[in-house]
Amino acid sequence: MSRFLDEHAAAVRAAAERIRPNVRHTPSLRTDLTPGLRLKAECFQITGSFKPRGAFNAVLSLIERGPRPNGVIAVSSGNHAQAVALAARTVGLPALILIPEDANPAKVAATRALGAEVIQKGITFANREQRLHEVMAERQLTLVHPFDDWDVIHGQGTAALELLQDNFLEGEPGLEVIATPVGGGGLLSGTAISAKSHSASIRVVGVEPASADDAYRSWKAGSIQTLEQAPATLADGVRTTAIGRRNFEVMFEQGLVDEIVTVTEDEIAAAVALAWTRLHLALEPTGALPLAAHMAEKLRGDRAGLILTGGNANLETVAKLLNHP
Amino acid sequence: MSRFLDEHAAAVRAAAERIRPNVRHTPSLRTDLTPGLRLKAECFQITGSFKPRGAFNAVLSLIERGPRPNGVIAVSSGNHAQAVALAARTVGLPALILIPEDANPAKVAATRALGAEVIQKGITFANREQRLHEVMAERQLTLVHPFDDWDVIHGQGTAALELLQDNFLEGEPGLEVIATPVGGGGLLSGTAISAKSHSASIRVVGVEPASADDAYRSWKAGSIQTLEQAPATLADGVRTTAIGRRNFEVMFEQGLVDEIVTVTEDEIAAAVALAWTRLHLALEPTGALPLAAHMAEKLRGDRAGLILTGGNANLETVAKLLNHP
Repeated sequence: MSRFLDEHAAAVRAAAERIRPNVRHTPSLRTDLTPGLRLKAECFQITGSFKPRGAFNAVLSLIERGPRPNGVIAVSSGNHAQAVALAARTVGLPALILIPEDANPAKVAATRALGAEVIQKGITFANREQRLHEVMAERQLTLVHPFDDWDVIHGQGTAALELLQDNFLEGEPGLEVIATPVGGGGLLSGTAISAKSHSASIRVVGVEPASADDAYRSWKAGSIQTLEQAPATLADGVRTTAIGRRNFEVMFEQGLVDEIVTVTEDEIAAAVALAWTRLHLALEPTGALPLAAHMAEKLRGDRAGLILTGGNANLETVAKLLNHP
Repeated sequence: MSRFLDEHAAAVRAAAERIRPNVRHTPSLRTDLTPGLRLKAECFQITGSFKPRGAFNAVLSLIERGPRPNGVIAVSSGNHAQAVALAARTVGLPALILIPEDANPAKVAATRALGAEVIQKGITFANREQRLHEVMAERQLTLVHPFDDWDVIHGQGTAALELLQDNFLEGEPGLEVIATPVGGGGLLSGTAISAKSHSASIRVVGVEPASADDAYRSWKAGSIQTLEQAPATLADGVRTTAIGRRNFEVMFEQGLVDEIVTVTEDEIAAAVALAWTRLHLALEPTGALPLAAHMAEKLRGDRAGLILTGGNANLETVAKLLNHP
């Protein structure tokens, strides 16, 4: 094992200890589909997505390192917002979250309910990074980046760590492949660290919508490729236009990710419907990406661990998918 | 502890050992709703409902006791059909299932896919018991009753056994109340045996639709009360018109069930929608009955274990519930 992998794997294990009181060890579910499939059901994580793993590790690490920050700031229209709000409230820090004006009001309300201040006025998907840096400087707040941050990457890696430990405790043959969605690459790079330090032979695969294939193109090109605009996709959790620098380093420079596969919108829709009808999991479309790849036979390996990232679905979309399967 | 309870609790523990290779230890999920809530998610059981616990215990016990039966027979339009088909196939016995003509074709197909012979022609909800006894005699098959059978009751009791064991292993304060749906009373009586042998102070509550309140009325009357016809309710898994004789004995003669509560159709619908949106569980309406009672504050006790029995929903119904919350 390389020194890089060794050090980062130790940091994931430390993250698991650090966040243990604050996050849930989610179940690794079996299914009636194929015997080798294991579903890491992060929809049952606190706040309904895997994001608190990274957010808690980042916020708790900030406090440990000192000096105590004035507060934290994040930009997100989705699951990262709630995760940062919860982590900050838990340690008694103020949290300010920038959410684009057109975001789902339910998610805004959920973020406010967790005690965060929310700014929406004048925030768009396009200008949000710039507004973030302005507000950060003004208020002297510390950023919790959604993916391009080592503490966040190490926190996200704890989901795969649990999956591998549970599979090992079952006394079953090891997993051949682990798949996660890929947006900015926080979860995928953390997963790659956990998986490859567990066994060099486990294949690690990132799954993204074909309409948001920047990670695929970055993998092929050997450098970070950026989408011109946020893509239209059912999988609204992976609309990020480019993966982060640290994520690229783990995934492709260090070669810890074996493959990026893309799935169509129809394959995503079919996976959401299948999750409801056969697996009894109410997933958000982003959370169903690895399942979409599995069902489309794009993941090789019968013993497959899928990290299903969350369940905070837009209900109208889901009702439509269920009505017109 | 009474000798009755002692003996039946031992039989539930023996059932847990007997069926261990064939059923799943399902997760006891925490939620973002209230800290003391534990959800026994039987929608993740093999075939999507708790029914294989009882069916496997019955079929494996038949084989153990000998002589080997010619085959097994059951009548069911739902989850019991698939459970008996699977258990019979596992031990290499033929299974014949009588399913009413108007049953959901998807469930019929699922039962056939598990290798069972299905008879539908001329079977109605009203005449199915009579037809069952005719066919049983004709073909010399052994009945696997859905609830009024000790092996089935003991098998169903293993779900609560796991829930109590998991809660104990967590080192948390014990549960104050355990709630299950009640149709014929197989699950509720098995649960009562497990719960009361674990601790006399745990309250055991059965939940049924107000429109199918035969268990409630039987509890109040002190004798088995029968509905005149199968009630119309979203919770189509508990349309049985009366609880069984053995179930009545456990629940009310022995006094192991503390209370029967009823919920309205609106409360059931709200619970299904809540399960999707906040809990990320795709439940069938019957499986959401204990959640409906909890949300309507009809279960006393903050530390509540809810046995959510299954996820094999009629999709059209659920899509409608999600569209009009």
